[in-house]
Amino acid sequence: MEFSSKLLERAVNEMSQLPGIGKRTALRLVLHLLKQPKEQTTALSEALQTMRNDVKFCKSCHNISDVDLCEICSNPNRDETLVCVVEDIRDVMAIENTSSFKGLYHVLGGKISPMDGIGPHDLNIVSLVNKVKEGKIKELIFALSSTMEGDTTNFYIFKQIQEYQVFTSTIARGISVGDELEYADEITLGRSIVNRVPFESSLKL
Amino acid sequence: MEFSSKLLERAVNEMSQLPGIGKRTALRLVLHLLKQPKEQTTALSEALQTMRNDVKFCKSCHNISDVDLCEICSNPNRDETLVCVVEDIRDVMAIENTSSFKGLYHVLGGKISPMDGIGPHDLNIVSLVNKVKEGKIKELIFALSSTMEGDTTNFYIFKQIQEYQVFTSTIARGISVGDELEYADEITLGRSIVNRVPFESSLKL
Repeated sequence: MEFSSKLLERAVNEMSQLPGIGKRTALRLVLHLLKQPKEQTTALSEALQTMRNDVKFCKSCHNISDVDLCEICSNPNRDETLVCVVEDIRDVMAIENTSSFKGLYHVLGGKISPMDGIGPHDLNIVSLVNKVKEGKIKELIFALSSTMEGDTTNFYIFKQIQEYQVFTSTIARGISVGDELEYADEITLGRSIVNRVPFESSLKL
Repeated sequence: MEFSSKLLERAVNEMSQLPGIGKRTALRLVLHLLKQPKEQTTALSEALQTMRNDVKFCKSCHNISDVDLCEICSNPNRDETLVCVVEDIRDVMAIENTSSFKGLYHVLGGKISPMDGIGPHDLNIVSLVNKVKEGKIKELIFALSSTMEGDTTNFYIFKQIQEYQVFTSTIARGISVGDELEYADEITLGRSIVNRVPFESSLKL
């Protein structure tokens, strides 16, 4: 792509470094900003920069927060003996939206993924193991996505905390609510039959 | 969506004002920036702001340019009696890429579109009509997209310049090179037969 302006070219190049944004999309976005009032670009630039420079992570659960200890961790009504291990802030938001969980979270910041060069030391695992060591946690719920990387991460953490007194669980896997059986994959369907639950308890939710 | 941080929320909200970027995509992009070095966010913010504040438009063709008169308009080797009317800078880039056009451009900055609240006075039409009035232009090529809005814009400009001595043309419409006939729409195919060209002249390109 040849640009008639260096300023435009630089903006497009920076924009296209975002994941999933190619050069053409970047050009479309930048041209859109040019048609809008200058204030919109200023607001966007400032919001991004302030966020990047000033954002804090909760010192306990590593969730993104404006204060040292996030709202969830500092809420006395939540069960601090029950900790749900998740990958990132989006998972916290998704679980919070269900209003079905009253414990705390621990945000790993990713999954172990040798392919992407992410090892255990790039994640917030040490602080989780320390929490377990201190004996404050009764149950740890693994809520990582059900992929090879998620399973590896679960297993790595499980090995580290095995010797301590903590009950571990994972979120239930099975056929999604509202799904047609015929379109379910075989592994999910197979596990779903093996791990069947009494009909009465399926009526709870 | 409920965010655990106001800074994050503001960044996501600003980001999601860009066209085609929803809240979820905005969150994904912002979380990506958080994982990258701070310099990337700084570079992006600065590039956008400098571009928005300092970008210039060529005083003749209204293309984006870092100087008063763009490279194309100031190139003495180009035919200034031949002017191609396009919608925006992307069309200039596309036509320049073909290396098939040696005239100048006139960038309208959009199409007349009452649905989107864009009237003739929001576009660079007056300066085009003035160029025609001055008698500098021999041929005007309409290269707007072949939609209702494009046709309306062409016709509006055509009415304004009708009384002046200028030859007008539009880019050829027809079956795209490499396309299968059976998948072409009927209007394109119909026009393509009516506006057929001598076989010898189809061999030129």
